[in-house]
Formats: sequence, structure tokens, C-alpha cells
Amino acid sequence: MQQDNKKDVFAKDNGGFTLCIVGVGLISGSFALSLKDKGFAKHVIGVSKTKASEEKALDLGIIDEALPLEEAIAKSDLIYIAIPVDATVPVSINILNLIDEHHIVADAGGTKHALCKAIEMHPKRARYVATHPMWGTEFSGPEAAVHNGFSGRSCVICEKEKSDTDAVAVVENIYTTLGMNLVYMQAEAHDIHAAYISHISHITSFSLANTVLEKEKEEDAIFQLAGGGFESTVRLAKSSPATWVPIFKQNRENLLDVLNEHITQLRKFKACLEKENYDYLYELIANANKIEKVLNG
Amino acid sequence: MQQDNKKDVFAKDNGGFTLCIVGVGLISGSFALSLKDKGFAKHVIGVSKTKASEEKALDLGIIDEALPLEEAIAKSDLIYIAIPVDATVPVSINILNLIDEHHIVADAGGTKHALCKAIEMHPKRARYVATHPMWGTEFSGPEAAVHNGFSGRSCVICEKEKSDTDAVAVVENIYTTLGMNLVYMQAEAHDIHAAYISHISHITSFSLANTVLEKEKEEDAIFQLAGGGFESTVRLAKSSPATWVPIFKQNRENLLDVLNEHITQLRKFKACLEKENYDYLYELIANANKIEKVLNG
Repeated sequence: MQQDNKKDVFAKDNGGFTLCIVGVGLISGSFALSLKDKGFAKHVIGVSKTKASEEKALDLGIIDEALPLEEAIAKSDLIYIAIPVDATVPVSINILNLIDEHHIVADAGGTKHALCKAIEMHPKRARYVATHPMWGTEFSGPEAAVHNGFSGRSCVICEKEKSDTDAVAVVENIYTTLGMNLVYMQAEAHDIHAAYISHISHITSFSLANTVLEKEKEEDAIFQLAGGGFESTVRLAKSSPATWVPIFKQNRENLLDVLNEHITQLRKFKACLEKENYDYLYELIANANKIEKVLNG
Repeated sequence: MQQDNKKDVFAKDNGGFTLCIVGVGLISGSFALSLKDKGFAKHVIGVSKTKASEEKALDLGIIDEALPLEEAIAKSDLIYIAIPVDATVPVSINILNLIDEHHIVADAGGTKHALCKAIEMHPKRARYVATHPMWGTEFSGPEAAVHNGFSGRSCVICEKEKSDTDAVAVVENIYTTLGMNLVYMQAEAHDIHAAYISHISHITSFSLANTVLEKEKEEDAIFQLAGGGFESTVRLAKSSPATWVPIFKQNRENLLDVLNEHITQLRKFKACLEKENYDYLYELIANANKIEKVLNG
């Protein structure tokens, strides 16, 4: 598609554009707050399945008005989708059907392969920028939205070459201004890396919480003794099933692969303890310590 | 044992006592810094197996002098042991052999049953207070020591009834002044709870690090993508094998019990993914979410 004059709405000296957030929760809410703070958005429209979320977001000043999707799109410049990843696919196609060529659409989903495949052949694909800002907290809903989210984390942009240059430039400029470090990947590679780095951590954390809830019948003891170590390891276990079940479903094969490896690794620790092989236990831990060097780059 | 005049050294208006730390690392170093900061200790003596640690601790102002154990004890009032838990047992007996009845001895070990059993019949057992301050970081050595550690966390005191009242009172007063919340337990119960709350978190974290290091051959991707979720789940994987192998060894049976349960829980997630049973996956996650309520008390 060619540039047209309506796209000037994204120009820096234009006084801000109208943002439509589809889904009114932690990610979209924090995105809206930040875009107002940074002067990108002058008006924010919220689209939500639930009246209660819309009202909460209005009360909290996250959105300026709530509208049905079609009306919201007609009034908006940038449409930002942050809903469970299974809903992202049909909603994205629906949105692409409704937009003009001046619109830019972006999503924040934690899986990218199914989405990119689904929109691949859409005639307006080039107005869509597939992104995964790797930021979040364990909380959800509009009341979890914060100012100054996103900063200091990576944001993956997938299949950049399939999006119009002007659309990518606007989205890149927003994320960069929010303090994110941009990383470019194909969607399939993104999902593999996300399984290793993000999704397995959640499964581990959910399982650890279930282990402790199952074994430790004295809830008072958990409350009294839970130190920083336990709290940081189970922090993610507070994350919402509505967000994570669709992610695990879409990334099932990669996740099974990593989960099998993780169970294998845990069984090595178990075998060391069973056989009282403390030299090998030492080696396993010394190997795990290498993660520090990798994390520090 | 009876109170004697020498014990007045622990009185508040006495200008501070002489602290001996056995082991010069994260815990003992942070303990020494805090006791100087709070006016408890006027002089700190360090005892270490390694000359390098002693020199580092002297350079950092954590200790005022380094001495061999016997000389250090002769000059000290409170002796605080923070070394790997397998060494804690013989070193504690050795220290009990060397002390007078004015001394107070305490340790900071992460397991308590083997220790309490080993010192149970010692004629000077009553001068020993078995403690586990549930604070730490993933770093080790004197350079990891910090001011203001311990605060806001729980400290377990085991088998309080086997220690002299005056010794317990001094140790309680110190930990309380450092901002810790005191919890009292028998040593066996402590080790069971510690397996659930602390030790399994470390195994999970070590295994997760090994999983990612094994599966994710692109170290750049780990570095670029590791967000808050991953970092908090693998934080403990940086912990030292010298500290943790002896803890796992001493708490082997409890830990195997919890580890078996943890593997069972992970296999439930795996089965859900394999069988595409997303309703049960949702249930597992919703159950894990209950940890939030338990942690909030």
C-alpha cells in the first residue's frame, strides 16, 4: 500500500492520534496509559467483551470511551489487540476486514506462529504489525494496568517484511520510546524461543505451587516461612488461566518438547538423591550456575 | 546453667559485645555488618578456612580481625556459625567443647534436624541456639554481604526449650532488631517445611536453568528474550553448589518426597498437553492460583 495523507496523524507534531485497545486488561491498559503519558495518543477507545471491564477502565482513566469494535475502528488510527491468543486470530481477521489503509493494527500476543499464518494471505496484511512485548506482571484486568510498564524489556517484532514500512516505523517508535529493546524474528522461531524462555517458566511455577499446595497441608507454615526464594519462584503461579491456556494450546508442540526435557532434568536431581551421588549433584548445580553468565550476555 | 556476671556483656548499655563469625560469607558477613550497624557488636572476629576470604572480609570492613577458631572463641561473646550445613555439625561440637558458660553460640544453617540431633547430648547444649534466618540472595562469599539483610523475613528458632533462656533472649532480640519475624519449631518439622518452601524451589530453578541451557542453543536468544518471568524463576539457579549440596544431602528424604510430587504435578501438565485436555489444564492453573491467597496469609 502507498502512504496517504491520513497517515500524517502519526507524525510527531500532529498532537497525537486516536488509539483503540481491543481487550481492556493489564497489557492493553498499560499500553494506553503509556501512550497518553508519552504524548502518542490523544484519545483512547476501549473495546471489551465485558461491560464491567469497560466501566472499570473508564473509572480508572485508562480509556476515554468504550465502543463496539466497528465504531471504535472507524474513529481510531492505531488498533492494539491484547486479548487471549486464541481470540486474537479471529479478531485480527475481523479487524483487518474492517480497516482502511490509513489504519495500523498491532497485537501483543505471546504466541505468533498461528496468528501470522492466519493473516498471511489477508489483502490488508501489510497494515498489521505482529509484536510480542515481553513484559507483564502476574496480575490481570484493567486494575492491573500500570504507568511505566514495558521499559527495559525486549519486544519481538515478527515477520517485519510482511508489514508496510510506515506501519512498522510507527510501532517501532512507540516501543522504543517506551524503553523496549527491539528483536526481530520469524514467527516460528519466536514460538520456539518463547517456549524455552517464557512458557516453561510458567508451567514450572504453576506446578511448584500445586506441589506445595498438595504436600504442605499447614497453610500457616507456607505463609510464615515463604521467603524471597519461594516467592520469586512461584510468582508466576498467580498468572491467569484465561491468558495461559490459549498460549500453551497454541505452542503445544514446542512446549511439550521443553517440558519433557525439564522433567528429564528434574529426574537427574532425583536420581542423584536416590543414589546419594553428591558429586554428580554438585555438577548439575555448577552447570545450572552458567545461566548467570548467559543472562548477563 | 546459671547466669553469671560475664553475661552482662550482652546488656544493652554495655557498649557492645565481641562477635565471632565462623565462615565469612553472605550470611555471616551480612549478620556482622548489621550487628555493627545496630550497635550490638563493637568488635567482629572472622574465622575462615581460606586466607583469601579473611583478607576480603578485612578489606571490606566486615571483620576487624581474623583469628584461628580457638583464639577467636577466647576473645568472643557471641559465636555465629554460617558455613555449609555438613560442616556445621562437627564445627558446632568443636565450638561447644571450647566455650565457657558465658558464651552464646548460634548457627544459620538451612537444615536443623541433623545438627540438633548431633548436639543434643552435649553438656554445653544449652548455650547453643539453633536458628534458620530465612533470608539470603543467590550470591555468595564476603563480597556478597550487605547491610540491611534479614529484614522482613522469617527466622526459625528450633528446639528453643533446649537452650538457656538468656541465650535465646539475646538471639531473639538480635533477630527482632534486624526486622525478622520469629517462628518456633522442632527441628524435624523445620526440615519438612524447608523442603516444601525453600529446597524444592532451588531444585526447580536449577533444573529449569539446565533445561534452557540444554535446549536453547542460541545463547543470544536467551540473553535478548529473558524477561522478568524467566529471570525470577531462574534467579535461584545462580546459588552455590557448596551451600546447596550439603542441604540437599541432609534433607534428602523430605526432598525426595516433595520432588516426587513435583514431577507428578509436571506430568499432569504434560498429560493435558499430550491429550489436549484444556479444561483440566485450566483447572490445574486455577488451582495453582490459590497460592496467592496462601502467601497473603
